[in-house]
Amino acid sequence: VATVEQVRQALAGVQDPELKRNLVELGMVHDLDVRGGAVHFTLALTILACPLRDKIIAEARAAVLSLEGVETVEVALREMSQEERQAVLPKEEGGAAARLNHIGRVLAVMSGKGGVGKSLVAGLLAVALRREGYTVGILDADITGPSIPRLFFDQVPPLRNTPLGILPAESRTGIKVMSINLLLPREDEAVIWRGPLIGRAIQQFWDDVLWGDLDMLVVDLPPGTSDASLTVMQSLPVGGVLLVTSPQGLAAMVVRKAARMVQQMGGRMLGVIENMSYALCPDGVTRLEVFGPSHTQEIAIEVGVPLLGQLPLDPRIAITCDAGQIEDYPAAEFVPIARRVAETAGLRPAGILEALTHRR
Amino acid sequence: VATVEQVRQALAGVQDPELKRNLVELGMVHDLDVRGGAVHFTLALTILACPLRDKIIAEARAAVLSLEGVETVEVALREMSQEERQAVLPKEEGGAAARLNHIGRVLAVMSGKGGVGKSLVAGLLAVALRREGYTVGILDADITGPSIPRLFFDQVPPLRNTPLGILPAESRTGIKVMSINLLLPREDEAVIWRGPLIGRAIQQFWDDVLWGDLDMLVVDLPPGTSDASLTVMQSLPVGGVLLVTSPQGLAAMVVRKAARMVQQMGGRMLGVIENMSYALCPDGVTRLEVFGPSHTQEIAIEVGVPLLGQLPLDPRIAITCDAGQIEDYPAAEFVPIARRVAETAGLRPAGILEALTHRR
Repeated sequence: VATVEQVRQALAGVQDPELKRNLVELGMVHDLDVRGGAVHFTLALTILACPLRDKIIAEARAAVLSLEGVETVEVALREMSQEERQAVLPKEEGGAAARLNHIGRVLAVMSGKGGVGKSLVAGLLAVALRREGYTVGILDADITGPSIPRLFFDQVPPLRNTPLGILPAESRTGIKVMSINLLLPREDEAVIWRGPLIGRAIQQFWDDVLWGDLDMLVVDLPPGTSDASLTVMQSLPVGGVLLVTSPQGLAAMVVRKAARMVQQMGGRMLGVIENMSYALCPDGVTRLEVFGPSHTQEIAIEVGVPLLGQLPLDPRIAITCDAGQIEDYPAAEFVPIARRVAETAGLRPAGILEALTHRR
Repeated sequence: VATVEQVRQALAGVQDPELKRNLVELGMVHDLDVRGGAVHFTLALTILACPLRDKIIAEARAAVLSLEGVETVEVALREMSQEERQAVLPKEEGGAAARLNHIGRVLAVMSGKGGVGKSLVAGLLAVALRREGYTVGILDADITGPSIPRLFFDQVPPLRNTPLGILPAESRTGIKVMSINLLLPREDEAVIWRGPLIGRAIQQFWDDVLWGDLDMLVVDLPPGTSDASLTVMQSLPVGGVLLVTSPQGLAAMVVRKAARMVQQMGGRMLGVIENMSYALCPDGVTRLEVFGPSHTQEIAIEVGVPLLGQLPLDPRIAITCDAGQIEDYPAAEFVPIARRVAETAGLRPAGILEALTHRR
């Protein structure tokens, strides 16, 4: 039969992955009780919503169970008090959340030009990947014209601030969302900030948001090649850039500017998506090229990336998105695009089990 | 009969309105010759394209003609040499152009959201006012995604740099245009600048461009409420703001942010224009509301400004604009809008004679 001291020793062999110290030293182990082969203790976590919680518990259980004579391990959880937490957390808390997060891939959606459907593509991509079973987040890097919350929420959900960072909002299907509009008193409040503040806000969305474990974080960039795009490309580990354009030659010209920026900054472009390619007349057949004939294949060739797909201008998209119900939009035409992006970005295929588990 | 000295005295009574010193003192009068009632002299101008040239000549002629015995005055013109100019111009040349310009009204076209048609509205407004006989300029304040040159020029015209400032490009019908894209080696060159540089570029478009005499300068703002919009609203004498939106609720939300910015900065909103309200099917009757039903009347009421008009989504606009021929687009639906803007902005009505003179 194991002694209390042996169990404590075993737990002292388990590290908090973020704080890099063992559980005993961190004062996380309480109420340790050993009755025959049954071990019980309480783990005081810095924060109950800690994304690494399950990992810590699993390791603690395994360590104790490896002791001879231990048959069962019961772990109760509680949150540390403010004082306990202050004693444990490093003085410099900046970026604490970032160290806790595990983000597989960061993909930036960019166009240079506004109004071509960056946010729509970012949203549809997140929805499609989520449907395939991936864990997905969207970082809305458009600080002055944020669109993402409007696509996913009918009412802006309240954000929870924790000592380790801000918990992102979660959509109905479990997509994590962070946007300046979730922090404003009203969604139409103006954010009249010069560049340095814009850059700092985006940096905080990376450093101070508890994204947790994500297969992919989609970053929705604002138009332009100024502060927001610069900060994202310089400070975030962007693994790929998706370009969005409309058929117009004018849009094509500005999108080429964006492509040049990515090239100059050593980024990797995964492909181009054309939005608003045509509208369908009520007869269901006649296609209206409302922005004129497409120039996108030319850009794709010039820039040297594949044209991943063309999306129609469907009034139902606008209506669904305006109502915060992008997750209800079937977007059949987006499924192959999302699969190709997942493949190009090197996402491991999500299993059916994961797909089922992640659905709510 | 007047003596050479009397003529020189008369010319010493004429001031250069910009340099605030008289023509003789400035060394502008040369080759002075008096034969009976016929006076001849050469005026050396700091720059031949000087916007105040005609004013200076007229005043000089009048001064000399007022002398007894003078019957005719012949004025030849030449440009000062580099040395002459350096001796005359003030050391601090920054803003020299701004002091030479006479700009009646500055009107900013803003939307907050990208891709709703700010540049198109700015362009159509300039074209319509020009057709009515006004002198018009467009300052393209979108530094990272400039659209204006593409609308007006098939090929980007070379800019002329003068010691007093940069001469803006002139469109076929005489609209003066300044845009970062006129200064780049290629129109798709990326301008990867952070906010302070963006602001400085716009400031220079105001300070260092020889706009000359304009009834109205239309400022095409980029999306967002960051550096560009801030600099324009804080540093330029903006007399009115025109809001542009699309029917989408999402656009409406972002446009409300822009309206709040204008309110917070004490600006004056002249009205809202809705773009891309509907597309017309080939049957010429069926209207497709490609962005869903309009939310613009609600914004107009909420913000307290008139809805000045709704523009259709016409593929010919995209095609005409992509070809640099916006001045050929009839835009009949824009005529009443432009007249209303001119009236609200307090432009004096342009006479028929002016309208005829200004056309080329």
